[in-house]
Amino acid sequence: MTFAATRPDEAVPGPTNSLHDVAGLRVGHDTRREDGWLTGTTVVLAGTGGSVGGVDVRGGGPGTRETDLLDPRNVVERVHAVVMSGGSAFGLAAADGVMEALYADGVGFPMGGPGEVVPIVPSAVIYDLGRGGVFANRPDASFGMRAYRAASAADVSVAPEMGVVGAGTGAVAGGFKGGVGSASVVLPGGTTVAALVVVNPLGAVLDPATGELLAGRYLLPADLPAGIRALRTPQELELGLSREAAARMAWPLPLRPALATTIAVVATDATLTKAQCQKLAGVAHDGMARAIRPVHTMFDGDTVFALSTTAGPAPDPWAFHALLEAGGDVMTRAIGRAVLVAQTVTTPAGSWRGYLDVFWTAGVRG
Amino acid sequence: MTFAATRPDEAVPGPTNSLHDVAGLRVGHDTRREDGWLTGTTVVLAGTGGSVGGVDVRGGGPGTRETDLLDPRNVVERVHAVVMSGGSAFGLAAADGVMEALYADGVGFPMGGPGEVVPIVPSAVIYDLGRGGVFANRPDASFGMRAYRAASAADVSVAPEMGVVGAGTGAVAGGFKGGVGSASVVLPGGTTVAALVVVNPLGAVLDPATGELLAGRYLLPADLPAGIRALRTPQELELGLSREAAARMAWPLPLRPALATTIAVVATDATLTKAQCQKLAGVAHDGMARAIRPVHTMFDGDTVFALSTTAGPAPDPWAFHALLEAGGDVMTRAIGRAVLVAQTVTTPAGSWRGYLDVFWTAGVRG
Repeated sequence: MTFAATRPDEAVPGPTNSLHDVAGLRVGHDTRREDGWLTGTTVVLAGTGGSVGGVDVRGGGPGTRETDLLDPRNVVERVHAVVMSGGSAFGLAAADGVMEALYADGVGFPMGGPGEVVPIVPSAVIYDLGRGGVFANRPDASFGMRAYRAASAADVSVAPEMGVVGAGTGAVAGGFKGGVGSASVVLPGGTTVAALVVVNPLGAVLDPATGELLAGRYLLPADLPAGIRALRTPQELELGLSREAAARMAWPLPLRPALATTIAVVATDATLTKAQCQKLAGVAHDGMARAIRPVHTMFDGDTVFALSTTAGPAPDPWAFHALLEAGGDVMTRAIGRAVLVAQTVTTPAGSWRGYLDVFWTAGVRG
Repeated sequence: MTFAATRPDEAVPGPTNSLHDVAGLRVGHDTRREDGWLTGTTVVLAGTGGSVGGVDVRGGGPGTRETDLLDPRNVVERVHAVVMSGGSAFGLAAADGVMEALYADGVGFPMGGPGEVVPIVPSAVIYDLGRGGVFANRPDASFGMRAYRAASAADVSVAPEMGVVGAGTGAVAGGFKGGVGSASVVLPGGTTVAALVVVNPLGAVLDPATGELLAGRYLLPADLPAGIRALRTPQELELGLSREAAARMAWPLPLRPALATTIAVVATDATLTKAQCQKLAGVAHDGMARAIRPVHTMFDGDTVFALSTTAGPAPDPWAFHALLEAGGDVMTRAIGRAVLVAQTVTTPAGSWRGYLDVFWTAGVRG
């Protein structure tokens, strides 16, 4: 049984408890949330030489680019950035800006002559159209450019901003405010595994019968927001109020095909093959399943990218096992963190309440 | 939020709370558990005309046959039986017996002349070699024959036997005794969704910090074994004893590549395409992720088959959404039931304790 599963309370996060703990990766956000806007873009830079990449698309309605090249049978090994963006399929344009910026910096797949590179920038988007009030307000290439500059200038000694920021600006999680979350773990052998996720699922992030956060049992003390010491089952009164408010909500309509999506990057400094990255992305989807119910529906475009910076050693089968387990766990924790830090947002299109704003008693304070 | 997730306590199981609630499906077991044996075979018969089939293989070490034909691009639409068996890859021989029996009964894909049929029998196996004491004692075609006869004679007005039976006879679930479980739900529109699972994962089926069954929060009152009224967090004392016993256990060795696997059939009477069956199988894997941690590892061959008997209507997008959600939930519940009913088994090779035998206080009795 000791082999079967690490006790969550035995896990040790990295110094920033975020994707920044995987050396070489840098996260940047571009956020726009006023005057009819509620959307943004998040870029993960994978280092000048890039990182080995994989992807697993499990949602029924994905919006992606440059995912087919990640098939282990195909030629390109390394990706230079991953772009996550609001704006549904329109938001894939954000990657154009990141490609131009990488090209200008000479980063990409070498094609021969000096400066002749093609940056490899896999991307995925979430549905947030209209949440700021204006349907046509969506990220374009300039969002990618600005997020790229933010990532290039990021202080990796601290975690990237979480919550209502970047690609998570317009995110909604099963009726509550969604957003960006991140978490990391350092395995006993020294390998780091981390996730950065944009949480915008159709499904619930809580147990509808009790109001408990589904990810709750997997969280470490370090995952809780400042001022929150523990989580508990919220009081029955709040649950009733939450249900009443949900029933009154004009948007999203209960029976409208609410296009949703959770997208993420899971990363490690261990040296993985493309196929191993694909497997890591797949097991990270299990971490989504533990935090979101239902998930991978026909109205979600759930997509996970996996990156290996190859700074550390290649794992033996047992180390790879531990790494996969960690990939699922950091995903669950990152989703839990996104929901806990996301605060209530109100726009002309609607109001999306933060989990801890609704379930005040779920947080043990002081 | 009302669209996001059904409250588990609002779900209504079918009359037998098992795969037998999907009209036309019949389950039969063949079990051998003495004199060096601890293994068996389980057959799901899919009706004379067969059922539309799909599959999703998510484990890193699968043992399967007739899964490639289930690719939605390939020609065969309907399968006539699904075989689940112990015996690792050797156990795939059990399907030979089922094929011969189906052929003798004239059931199969028609090839032209009278009686000229090829039965379509997808299969998957679990690793249980040596658990009865003799490594070479594994299912062969005769197990399939006997399980076929048992299925043909099954009383579908009651649930098939669960626990230490059929393909679950030698199953071990994260150090505890595994086995066979089943559960069903009837959706508001009248569609039935059900799962039958053989629970033999490497990963844990409980929260290692508290001893709580991971599937616990998803179970319905009808899912609990006779005499158990509710589940609760077991007493700390039992948790300590369980850890000590685990540390003393000679087998499985903690750092041995314990080949494991959870395999299942999820089924519905709704009319689905092959591609929709594949999607249903995929979302059912999320139900595994909620009940088992970690899952889909390189040491697990986790495989889910999906069957559509096509007796009911084809779902619209919302009905299909509800059906997928139900597929995940019945999988979690079936796994929980398998673990709750599996009782301690001791053979010359070792002793595997039932969850409720170890955590007596987890069950509220009376």
